[in-house]
Amino acid sequence: MSETTNKKKVKVAIVGAGFGGIAAANALVKSKDIEIHIIDRRNYHLFQPLLYQVAMAGLNPSDIAIPIRKLYSQYKNVFVTLAEVEKVDEHKKQIYYDNKWEQFDYIILACGAKHFYFGNNDWEKFAPGLKNIEQATEIRRRILTALELAEKEKNIDTQQSYLNFVVVGGGPTGVELAGAISEMTKNTLVKDYKNADLKKTNVYLIEAGPRLLATFPKELSHRAAKDLEEMGVKVLTNKIASELSSMGLKAGEQWIDCKTILWAAGVKPASLTEKVNTKKSDSGQIIINKDLSISSNSNIFALGDMAYFEQADGTGLPGVAQVALQQGEFVGRQILNELKGKPRGEFKYWDKGIMATIGRSRAVVSSGRLQLTGFIAWLTWVFIHIVYLMKFKNRIFVFLQWTWSYFKFGRGAQLIVHKSWRFYSGKKISYEDESDKN
Amino acid sequence: MSETTNKKKVKVAIVGAGFGGIAAANALVKSKDIEIHIIDRRNYHLFQPLLYQVAMAGLNPSDIAIPIRKLYSQYKNVFVTLAEVEKVDEHKKQIYYDNKWEQFDYIILACGAKHFYFGNNDWEKFAPGLKNIEQATEIRRRILTALELAEKEKNIDTQQSYLNFVVVGGGPTGVELAGAISEMTKNTLVKDYKNADLKKTNVYLIEAGPRLLATFPKELSHRAAKDLEEMGVKVLTNKIASELSSMGLKAGEQWIDCKTILWAAGVKPASLTEKVNTKKSDSGQIIINKDLSISSNSNIFALGDMAYFEQADGTGLPGVAQVALQQGEFVGRQILNELKGKPRGEFKYWDKGIMATIGRSRAVVSSGRLQLTGFIAWLTWVFIHIVYLMKFKNRIFVFLQWTWSYFKFGRGAQLIVHKSWRFYSGKKISYEDESDKN
Repeated sequence: MSETTNKKKVKVAIVGAGFGGIAAANALVKSKDIEIHIIDRRNYHLFQPLLYQVAMAGLNPSDIAIPIRKLYSQYKNVFVTLAEVEKVDEHKKQIYYDNKWEQFDYIILACGAKHFYFGNNDWEKFAPGLKNIEQATEIRRRILTALELAEKEKNIDTQQSYLNFVVVGGGPTGVELAGAISEMTKNTLVKDYKNADLKKTNVYLIEAGPRLLATFPKELSHRAAKDLEEMGVKVLTNKIASELSSMGLKAGEQWIDCKTILWAAGVKPASLTEKVNTKKSDSGQIIINKDLSISSNSNIFALGDMAYFEQADGTGLPGVAQVALQQGEFVGRQILNELKGKPRGEFKYWDKGIMATIGRSRAVVSSGRLQLTGFIAWLTWVFIHIVYLMKFKNRIFVFLQWTWSYFKFGRGAQLIVHKSWRFYSGKKISYEDESDKN
Repeated sequence: MSETTNKKKVKVAIVGAGFGGIAAANALVKSKDIEIHIIDRRNYHLFQPLLYQVAMAGLNPSDIAIPIRKLYSQYKNVFVTLAEVEKVDEHKKQIYYDNKWEQFDYIILACGAKHFYFGNNDWEKFAPGLKNIEQATEIRRRILTALELAEKEKNIDTQQSYLNFVVVGGGPTGVELAGAISEMTKNTLVKDYKNADLKKTNVYLIEAGPRLLATFPKELSHRAAKDLEEMGVKVLTNKIASELSSMGLKAGEQWIDCKTILWAAGVKPASLTEKVNTKKSDSGQIIINKDLSISSNSNIFALGDMAYFEQADGTGLPGVAQVALQQGEFVGRQILNELKGKPRGEFKYWDKGIMATIGRSRAVVSSGRLQLTGFIAWLTWVFIHIVYLMKFKNRIFVFLQWTWSYFKFGRGAQLIVHKSWRFYSGKKISYEDESDKN
């Protein structure tokens, strides 16, 4: 290879430091011949599966996030840049960020997905989604502020509207959020409020389809719905959310008065996808080849939630961490092989299973023909998350502590932190965040 | 007492849940005849002495803050309201919040202090102070963002301006911040950055007076300055900061190019002080009587940083947690005594000493004739903070962990979290926070 003889390093850009990007980088760092550039608009890698716990005041942001730099501080061939990639030139293998074009030998696109409001972008301010730490702390702020306002509200109807919470979307995130809000209000916090009766909290989980957890076996969907209802969550299936406002929303034909709505319904690929000139799926994902390269340039790869990979049976892959992890590792390996003159392989997804936690000591797990529910499923969920968090960072300590306090019905992180401290100087508390006007 | 015969409870308002307000509440909860209303515009009590550690990415916000409600969840006679008190009617013993006047039998004003820019309020955006969690995370964001921008800056002068940090004010907070920034950049983070050499970081500590830590014995001031200089901090005394901008500031006659300025200089009493019609000191504090009541109504008390208490020797009291704690406890006791028909006493401050931490294993402690420096002072500082944090909340665990990682030169919480996640959608990273425009 000419690269090794004249010592010029092979430059690889990794756009996005989520599960896919980090997995690719981890595979590539082994080679001294490669210079890795990780570009992300945030300075941390996030363990997204536990993000809902930050929203629910159970974990601190730094418990589930690690600075990207820290992951690679001992590797001299890894460069981390805090920037947003705005454009991709597929033919020149260039990406545009920090006001300039940079050329690479390989480009790995791993930017993930963002929320999709089915064309109603104005709903975002009424119903934040849960994809990053800022959203998680915003959701925490909204829920805790609603309870504070309920505490001092004299009008019973208005008070109830503060105690009504709606989660839109019955996938794993929606199920986790609905269960956790119900437990937090009816159990953990109930004693802290003297005027408002938190036992009167209503949590609605709204799903447009016929059942929760659509990607799970039917029996597990039903069990999850049953568990949630036992925990006091009102599960409404076959109901499409419409007419969102700061006063509530319409679910099917039913209007629900509520001040807090959370969005866990639609996702779409990250914005950068639109700037890549290549084949796309109906939902806007980049259609990738068997080796995960994009159709317009074999040295550019796309993976995870940004990409559509068609399996042998004609189906796509779920939007889960496992897919991104396996794809990232695969792409890293293909590049290493190619530098050694070996041909590329074909990606095959190893489905280890899916799981969703419903509440304290309840979960559903589906792996092959194995189906778990209840406490044993929850233990499995905890165990797997401990193992992954351990690999991810040395925070097993934190996670064990959290698991313990979860059992004890405690919440460590119930702070309402306003996004702008200046907003606070001399102005009144408002439920809508005024610092977000622009 | 008529209150006990007809079972009407004595209503006490506590405005502000800092050290003073919480100490007063803790003294009062013992009596079933009293109904306590704690009103604060934040939902948490903050262990402010460790706030600089949140700014320095060493601790999480929730490690040093506890929801006020949680402190009193088992007391049926304590009501917590999230609101900002806007006015005080001294004669009617009423306070105005949530758009209404409320009457109380006793009012305890304990709102603390805020930053003072000596009439240059526009400096606040260039040089945030450190009084609350939002400011702490904002300071963290600015420091880490400056390092990120230094990492990608090609122009050497501009890069150096990102690596220059100025702390204005040589009191305990300024000393702690300057020491911590120097350690964090030159030791903890130096390996994480590949293009910027963090050994080139300059930390300037600017003090208008002739020496740092003016309230400490002279020898300790000199030792602190010497320690800081050994750690690479440039200590500039007798220099008044002027001409602050986003490009730097003028200290005396010297212009310093820098992108990050922190304000630890002036404080003034909380805004509510201006709304209280009573005797004030030159600096705007409420002048209080020997029993800590205000001159215009003996059933209204003021304490801590809001108040000026003249000691027998004609001097005032320092703005430290101990003063607020002892005064809060004293006021609580006076009210309890009064309900039993006992006369009021006179407050006497028990000066247990003062201390400031300078860096890893360096501090200064002054207590009576005892003066400690270096490692033994630092151990004393750690021990006392562990004891107080333990009383304050069950976080000794967290603090021990932190002490350990402080030794190991680790930083747990290096996340740049943007105040507005919406700010991020599609826009570029900017050094100034655009969400603060209004």
